[in-house]
Amino acid sequence: MTRKESPPMEAFKKYRISPKNTLKDIDPSDKPFSFGTKKDELQRLDELAVELDDLQNTLYAGKRRKVLLILQGLDTSGKDGTIRWVFSRTSPLGVHVAAFKAPSERERAHDFLWRCHAVVPANGELTVWNRSHYEDVLVPPVEGWIDKAETQRRYGHINDFERLLSETGTTIVKCMLHISNEEQRERLQDRLKDPGKNWKFAADDLSTRAKWNDYQRAYEQALQATSTPHAPWYVIPANSKRHRNLMVAQLLVQTLRDMKLRLPPPNLAFKDLVVN
Amino acid sequence: MTRKESPPMEAFKKYRISPKNTLKDIDPSDKPFSFGTKKDELQRLDELAVELDDLQNTLYAGKRRKVLLILQGLDTSGKDGTIRWVFSRTSPLGVHVAAFKAPSERERAHDFLWRCHAVVPANGELTVWNRSHYEDVLVPPVEGWIDKAETQRRYGHINDFERLLSETGTTIVKCMLHISNEEQRERLQDRLKDPGKNWKFAADDLSTRAKWNDYQRAYEQALQATSTPHAPWYVIPANSKRHRNLMVAQLLVQTLRDMKLRLPPPNLAFKDLVVN
Repeated sequence: MTRKESPPMEAFKKYRISPKNTLKDIDPSDKPFSFGTKKDELQRLDELAVELDDLQNTLYAGKRRKVLLILQGLDTSGKDGTIRWVFSRTSPLGVHVAAFKAPSERERAHDFLWRCHAVVPANGELTVWNRSHYEDVLVPPVEGWIDKAETQRRYGHINDFERLLSETGTTIVKCMLHISNEEQRERLQDRLKDPGKNWKFAADDLSTRAKWNDYQRAYEQALQATSTPHAPWYVIPANSKRHRNLMVAQLLVQTLRDMKLRLPPPNLAFKDLVVN
Repeated sequence: MTRKESPPMEAFKKYRISPKNTLKDIDPSDKPFSFGTKKDELQRLDELAVELDDLQNTLYAGKRRKVLLILQGLDTSGKDGTIRWVFSRTSPLGVHVAAFKAPSERERAHDFLWRCHAVVPANGELTVWNRSHYEDVLVPPVEGWIDKAETQRRYGHINDFERLLSETGTTIVKCMLHISNEEQRERLQDRLKDPGKNWKFAADDLSTRAKWNDYQRAYEQALQATSTPHAPWYVIPANSKRHRNLMVAQLLVQTLRDMKLRLPPPNLAFKDLVVN
């Protein structure tokens, strides 16, 4: 594989969730798109970030289609870092990030998709969701706030909602950043030690960590139930930050390339216009 | 002035609107912060963009204060380009851009500040407004939709609104990108010629251009009436794109430095915590 080429979508198949391919089948320390030296990889990542900027400009100019990147993952899995690196060369003009925290009182007074629908990308926009409506099929069942039947109903609502977006011009890319239990332990400990990272630590992180197996199972079931042809789930091995970034960037660039975006054709009415 | 230093806020005084300093006093071809070669200047701009990223991270971590950058200017004055360059090194995680177009029917059914208030920065956020509520004291009076008394009332509403934001923790930076009539002519003509820029051209741009003097006067009056101690207006000479970017970056970095932001202190309760 030469520097400029990206792997075809086929290469991502091993990491795409399907009835035969579950979260458990994927090793969080995999480095599927590793190649050459660290320097080579960082350079490739930068090239992908530059290409993403170019593709996003064309999307923006076209004002017709929309892209939604959904990032999910446990605490410390690297959602913020992925956004920082993958979008290191794009302009905030056309890239929007929406972060979903614990819902407010007003948000809880609506159905769980209400606050998400409000921030879907508009024509020409690329929007990143830092966490998403998937939190509502992960936290509530693990915490015992909703039962199995309600969780199943929510999977259905999610698939219907994503079909609506897809059929009205939105390309959806869903990435679950997958880290191991030991990797999370080290990262949380590091947050406690490093004064520059201490502000990111919340005591809640430990009580969530104590339910590690429950969350793995909730993720496994949710991904399985909502990996559809119009909005497939990719599990990104994320123990290595560099390879995680590289894989998300490759996947997003490849997806945008496959959309075959073009700049709008010049308006012939303006062809010989002279500005005075 | 050595490479690493930025000019003190005092240096911006000549470009700050006051009763004695109006838009007419400022030459759009000025290059006040020019120094050294083009290469030196581009390097300085990159250093400022990196410093802005660092300052914005500290703002984000603190989750207490907010920054609002308002960009105004006629068509082709470079609002998009300024955003692209000044925010070339920041992450979309904490930088949001809101673009104000002609108001929708629902927006017009509210007071003119309604849609703006909805997208002010929250604690820890840096938000850029690409156009703003100032459109509502520029377009309507020039087009004759509102009279002088209503325009004056709106100036008052704007000053009150910005005082609210300021007194509740928002630092407001207002920049008017100032280009000459001839510079706009060249840029519009360029948009018509260049197939990569053609999509940016709208026939409306020419009818607005035909009212050049009216818009200069409307800007002059609006800036004069709304350049307050808590939210001063800076006029950025913008005939030179590089020097425009440099000046906005300097002003924003200097403003954030003056806020003396600090990372939150480490939580002592977590001091000896071991993650299992």
